[in-house]
Amino acid sequence: MWLIHQFPLCPFSRKVRLLLGEKGVGYELVREHPWERRDEFVDLNPAGRTPVMVESEKNITLIDSVAICEYFEETVEQAPMISGTAINRAEIRRLTAWFDQQFYGAVVDPLMNERMLKRLVHRASPDTGALREAMKAANGMLDYADYLLDHRNWLAGATLSLADLTAAAHISVADYLGGIDWRAHEQTRNWYSGLKSRPSFRPMLAERMGVIAPPDDYDKVDF
Amino acid sequence: MWLIHQFPLCPFSRKVRLLLGEKGVGYELVREHPWERRDEFVDLNPAGRTPVMVESEKNITLIDSVAICEYFEETVEQAPMISGTAINRAEIRRLTAWFDQQFYGAVVDPLMNERMLKRLVHRASPDTGALREAMKAANGMLDYADYLLDHRNWLAGATLSLADLTAAAHISVADYLGGIDWRAHEQTRNWYSGLKSRPSFRPMLAERMGVIAPPDDYDKVDF
Ligand SMILES: N[C@@H](CCC(=O)N[C@@H](CS)C(=O)NCC(=O)O)C(=O)O
Ligand SMILES: N[C@@H](CCC(=O)N[C@@H](CS)C(=O)NCC(=O)O)C(=O)O
Repeated sequence: MWLIHQFPLCPFSRKVRLLLGEKGVGYELVREHPWERRDEFVDLNPAGRTPVMVESEKNITLIDSVAICEYFEETVEQAPMISGTAINRAEIRRLTAWFDQQFYGAVVDPLMNERMLKRLVHRASPDTGALREAMKAANGMLDYADYLLDHRNWLAGATLSLADLTAAAHISVADYLGGIDWRAHEQTRNWYSGLKSRPSFRPMLAERMGVIAPPDDYDKVDF
Repeated sequence: MWLIHQFPLCPFSRKVRLLLGEKGVGYELVREHPWERRDEFVDLNPAGRTPVMVESEKNITLIDSVAICEYFEETVEQAPMISGTAINRAEIRRLTAWFDQQFYGAVVDPLMNERMLKRLVHRASPDTGALREAMKAANGMLDYADYLLDHRNWLAGATLSLADLTAAAHISVADYLGGIDWRAHEQTRNWYSGLKSRPSFRPMLAERMGVIAPPDDYDKVDF
């Protein structure tokens, strides 16, 4: 049985869980808060980051969400998520990297710091300037997603791909933390509504991170 | 003919150039300074980042060094750099991500800010505290590389892989900017000396970034 070391608001873990859900690979969750830097966890992953996947019977440890997704793409045929021509695959990987790095860096990471870590770890109030910046960045980046979805069925082309799962993972965490204003983003909202209703997505929307409550519409398919 | 939009000290562009060099794919360089945010460049890559590769006859644009390396790995058989079992490939991608994100974030990015951007763009002096932190981080991370190379011929296993090219790309930029103290890192130093003597690496070591001069030993195979 695969174990995923993660916490409910880790977007990289959500991405992996969505991919495994689409592919029908079973797993169990192990709660890990990387900011605690537990010795046993750092021994498992010297980078000290979630997600980490372990299959102890086969003695396999997988680290880094991109490496993990590529691994299951290579080993499980069902529901290909990095498919098509080499050019299609490059476009999927470009957008995956864009969400993992730029959307995460400008939107998700500051929201997690201000609304999650300050509350759970530092017992401090969020910096409203930082929150405003993150929400502004989210807005600009969703404009780009709207633009892509004006031209394509899915973010990277004609079929559902890892780019969509990655984007939905990051957007869902930003949404949980109150960072998304859906009003001006009809295309992305329709696309996200479709993703939310998938069986791979529904269980994740029911999970909560301690005392931090999401907005009312967070888990609704109509929002 | 492939064009690479880049500047000499961009580690992600160096990684791509090393891979293309090993695979024998020809290319021409186009100088781009992403911090200038030229309109034409942002039109080409909305993320505003180097490297970008363009093949205009075939109407192909490739963005993001990971997507680019996977593309050439899939389309050019020669000199496989993400090879072996799915587990070997996951290990190559784990270490590639580790250098691209953690070594870059804690070492290369601050060195580029303090020693390159402050000099070329802001006309300011480097912050010696930030430089010290970056050099300390480099030291800790090279300890981990030493540990890996104590157990393996190459960083990710028995053969030269994208993990080595990625690590060498980032380390070479940090070395150019005076951020590496080689004294306590014999294993990594021997490994790096071997890489420096490869035909894919030599031309890059001869390039200079404007007025910024590297240390004397920077381009020497014996250092
Ligand atoms: N490139 C990694 C990034 C993982 C990552 O940054 N995880 C965060 C949690 S969402 C973390 O563990 N941060 C703690 C740290 O960086 O020390 C991946 O794709 O898996
Ligand atoms: N994930 C990208 C990262 C590229 C990157 O960060 N490039 C730097 C130059 S070394 C850049 O363009 N920075 C400007 C910016 O982020 O605005 C890749 O692997 O290609």
